[in-house]
Amino acid sequence: MSSIGVFDSGVGGLTVAREIIRQLPDENIIYFGDTARVPYGIKSPQTVIRFSIENILFLLKHDVKLICVACNTASSFALPVIRNHFRVPIIGVITPGAREAVYASQNKRIGVIGTKGTIKSRTYENEIKQLDPKVKVTAVACPLFVPFVEEGWLAGEVVESVAKKYLQPLRDAKVDTVILGCTHYPLLKPLIQQVLGKQVVLIDSAKQVAFEIKKILGSEDLLNRGKSGKPACRSGRPVCPAGRHKFFVSDNPEWFSSLAQRFMGIKLKNVKKAQNV
Amino acid sequence: MSSIGVFDSGVGGLTVAREIIRQLPDENIIYFGDTARVPYGIKSPQTVIRFSIENILFLLKHDVKLICVACNTASSFALPVIRNHFRVPIIGVITPGAREAVYASQNKRIGVIGTKGTIKSRTYENEIKQLDPKVKVTAVACPLFVPFVEEGWLAGEVVESVAKKYLQPLRDAKVDTVILGCTHYPLLKPLIQQVLGKQVVLIDSAKQVAFEIKKILGSEDLLNRGKSGKPACRSGRPVCPAGRHKFFVSDNPEWFSSLAQRFMGIKLKNVKKAQNV
Repeated sequence: MSSIGVFDSGVGGLTVAREIIRQLPDENIIYFGDTARVPYGIKSPQTVIRFSIENILFLLKHDVKLICVACNTASSFALPVIRNHFRVPIIGVITPGAREAVYASQNKRIGVIGTKGTIKSRTYENEIKQLDPKVKVTAVACPLFVPFVEEGWLAGEVVESVAKKYLQPLRDAKVDTVILGCTHYPLLKPLIQQVLGKQVVLIDSAKQVAFEIKKILGSEDLLNRGKSGKPACRSGRPVCPAGRHKFFVSDNPEWFSSLAQRFMGIKLKNVKKAQNV
Repeated sequence: MSSIGVFDSGVGGLTVAREIIRQLPDENIIYFGDTARVPYGIKSPQTVIRFSIENILFLLKHDVKLICVACNTASSFALPVIRNHFRVPIIGVITPGAREAVYASQNKRIGVIGTKGTIKSRTYENEIKQLDPKVKVTAVACPLFVPFVEEGWLAGEVVESVAKKYLQPLRDAKVDTVILGCTHYPLLKPLIQQVLGKQVVLIDSAKQVAFEIKKILGSEDLLNRGKSGKPACRSGRPVCPAGRHKFFVSDNPEWFSSLAQRFMGIKLKNVKKAQNV
């Protein structure tokens, strides 16, 4: 079976997987969440690169035709280093998000929110500047947003008060577009929108990522055309029935399943523990 | 050199290391913080046991005469399983904390706060019940406390509001003693005391842990008696000058050093990265 491989530090990448499934319903997905070592956002570039390589090697065992790094921190730190190590195309979430933001912004003032690692790496900033050097970028780390989302605190006085504090520099900078630079943040979208005002466009890169995957697979004639279509498989082995998805984690499959409903909108059955990734 | 080995999922165990240094100033300490895989509190027993064994094997390379598991989650999940695997004495933070709480409580109503893992394991509850079956235990997980402490949010409206929400069941249960069942929580002591009221005794097991280490080393004639005293070393190799401490982490030595001031009250120099623990 030839599938699209997706990895994330944990459960957040399911927001990307959901969009891939929506745009490419005939594709099979192998998802890996590194729940034994989550979170990545506070860890060093060297460690995130090592973890990312191990995750890619796990996905390659499952005959994937493309890998999507659904984690912003891993995309920031690891992608520039490892992209050329492997034959399989690897795409991250930074470039698609940056492209969509530059396209959306009218006043050329873009905000970026993410983990400490993502913000410190300045990857979004560099990508945006490459696309349009005139854009002014304001980037802010929001380290408490991930624990809030994982605890299910998506609204209410406490999280609103934290959001106001974190987002004030974006309001001061008068940005008209904000990149949600962490896969957990789409779940806080209503709150972030409320704090920033409805005139601000919030960019969740998942849609653009899925669109780019479609484009790459299309250009390489690797799209799975479903039961009636032509099989597309790097290894030449027969394609399994379309739209089968498998979910692996390095720890706590039950916890992952319980959070999946929140991130993906559907219940996940048969989440499996990968051995000692 | 024969040292006391201490490990924790990250930086929190420094509150225990500080107390060992205070009570045993002639002892050398080898500290390991597993910052590449922090936190442990949300992970499964199997994974925490695997990580703990790897950490112990790292400390054993440094000729330790006793190992202190300074992490409550690791003490809860791993200690009962691994204690008898190794020749070196291994002590955790649960039993000393439970003992002190039972001793301190007048009304036999004890509260326990900790990570999800620690609370789910019911280890504190079982230890307390073994010491005194009449004690009523109220245990509450406070998962947002660790990110708050690591972000340096130790006071203020937001963290106070969260603390009030978490600690309400302890107020309802009219406990007179509360175990701070996570090594991060002593930094929130003033806030927790304020929310619970000054009549409630807060137990930080570090003191009792250091006292127990002193007792074990004394009974086995393994105490380091300083430059003038008799060397005490399992391997028979000469003892290095007393009171030398070494700090290792699996990731981000700079981040660890910067947090150490908060947890230990002193600046740590030369924190080293251990290779791929």
